Amino acid sequence: MQLERSRLKPSLAPPRVVEQREEIRALVAAARREGRRVGLVPTMGALHAGHLSLVDESRRECDLTVVSIFVNPIQFGLGEDFSRYPRTLVADIELLAGPASTVVFAPSAEAMFAPGANTLVDVGELAASWEGGHRPGHFRGVATIVLKLFHLIPADAAYFGRKDYQQALVIRRMVDDLDVPIAVRVCPTVREPDGLAMSSRNRFLSPDERARAATINQALRIADEALRQGERRAEAIGERARRHMTDVGRLQVDYVAVADPRTLAPLASVDAPAVVAIAARVGSTRLIDNATIGAADPNGPI
Amino acid sequence: MQLERSRLKPSLAPPRVVEQREEIRALVAAARREGRRVGLVPTMGALHAGHLSLVDESRRECDLTVVSIFVNPIQFGLGEDFSRYPRTLVADIELLAGPASTVVFAPSAEAMFAPGANTLVDVGELAASWEGGHRPGHFRGVATIVLKLFHLIPADAAYFGRKDYQQALVIRRMVDDLDVPIAVRVCPTVREPDGLAMSSRNRFLSPDERARAATINQALRIADEALRQGERRAEAIGERARRHMTDVGRLQVDYVAVADPRTLAPLASVDAPAVVAIAARVGSTRLIDNATIGAADPNGPI
Repeated sequence: MQLERSRLKPSLAPPRVVEQREEIRALVAAARREGRRVGLVPTMGALHAGHLSLVDESRRECDLTVVSIFVNPIQFGLGEDFSRYPRTLVADIELLAGPASTVVFAPSAEAMFAPGANTLVDVGELAASWEGGHRPGHFRGVATIVLKLFHLIPADAAYFGRKDYQQALVIRRMVDDLDVPIAVRVCPTVREPDGLAMSSRNRFLSPDERARAATINQALRIADEALRQGERRAEAIGERARRHMTDVGRLQVDYVAVADPRTLAPLASVDAPAVVAIAARVGSTRLIDNATIGAADPNGPI
Repeated sequence: MQLERSRLKPSLAPPRVVEQREEIRALVAAARREGRRVGLVPTMGALHAGHLSLVDESRRECDLTVVSIFVNPIQFGLGEDFSRYPRTLVADIELLAGPASTVVFAPSAEAMFAPGANTLVDVGELAASWEGGHRPGHFRGVATIVLKLFHLIPADAAYFGRKDYQQALVIRRMVDDLDVPIAVRVCPTVREPDGLAMSSRNRFLSPDERARAATINQALRIADEALRQGERRAEAIGERARRHMTDVGRLQVDYVAVADPRTLAPLASVDAPAVVAIAARVGSTRLIDNATIGAADPNGPI
């Protein structure tokens, strides 16, 4: 198997791994001085096919791809899963073998947050609802670490997955509001064959939980189907989705948002494509997913 | 007079004035690609000798100096002097006549804040005391606009005056915490012959108020003198400064801080150089000033 893989892709090389801030900064600055286009894929590691699709997109569009791997402590709340979040750096690096123009930036927590660091970026209202409501401070932590990465790795473009729909909007708003000179690309969610969105947290699921987790994506398709059948009341659409997860999946549903796809403001009536975003707990694992309903592609770029 | 000035400085040229964000961004990017060092002097206009000292410093150290002129609405609170803040763009541009390598960036409010812009940068504790306590949200507004300018004008160095001592610390903290790739230079306060710190707001003072305003800097020297005479109790030092302003100057004193020069934490006892920072109102005009006490240079760079 290993041999066969080597024969098929003879150019596979392990990526260069950089731990020091000044080293990655200098490397990216040098690439840009040479006129090379730089792509950044910010991750928390525990890479899966969703991340790799972002890396592929960056490799297609850019001359140098930097994949940052950093489990960002300030986006986790008290009692959340920061300490058990999967850390699989060696496997991650293997998965990133490929063109020589891929670099992994894997700093230590000490390198990223000096003692006394206290500055936070808050995008306001957009970050207050849904995930932000259930995870207070989460998006401040996300926006802050992403902006730090944008400063350390001044890429031309940065790649995010649409599974984290609200996060993508938050980052777009930050970039727009603060005039950050970087293009934000949001790529489609990658799914397992049964529709479950790829997530680093899926590895926590027992076989039974794994099966029940599939009801999240089913619920999104039920919402889309309800709309297609003429149900326009957002509450009724959300309720059908929720009931499927609770009744069939035995999930604990944090929220089912039926919302404006740009502002995430809750809708009363769905008269144009809307986003349905879900957070639900399967056992002790909290998962999120979303889809656009009433649109040709429920999973298209945003 | 005009003629004589022209003879003495034959190279005086009016600066180029840029109003569009994308134009200043392209201009600075081109300069940096050519290896030119770029300095940024962020101002709210109504330029005086203090601003010009920052411009001079940038001109000494850099190949291209950008002076931004923008009265930033989000750093003013309700009931503050945003609407009456002096706007003297034509005179400002004349004052910046000089080497051809000076550019003025003077955007409109609409260009700087798109509808719906909502992102704010908060440096935390350092911004909560003194000016931050009396002007809630002020430093969020300052940090946010300065970060936007840093993104639009990716200079090598930015120049600030130490009259706004807490502001300088806030910007340093933001730059450090968010890994912004810019050097922050803080230059000494420039004073009138009687010691009054140069300020755009000094032009609001009536002749009587102008005379009384001199007690602010006198109070700073009284605090330094008290320390030199052996008074170490911060409260007693601050009280002597305050009394001079209220009794001699008939000022309304917002605060007299006797504080750690890095953290601005209030001191009980002054056992090392400390900063004394003052905010006081002369009639309807609010002025600030500061000095380091117990140091060789009360007005040195920080």
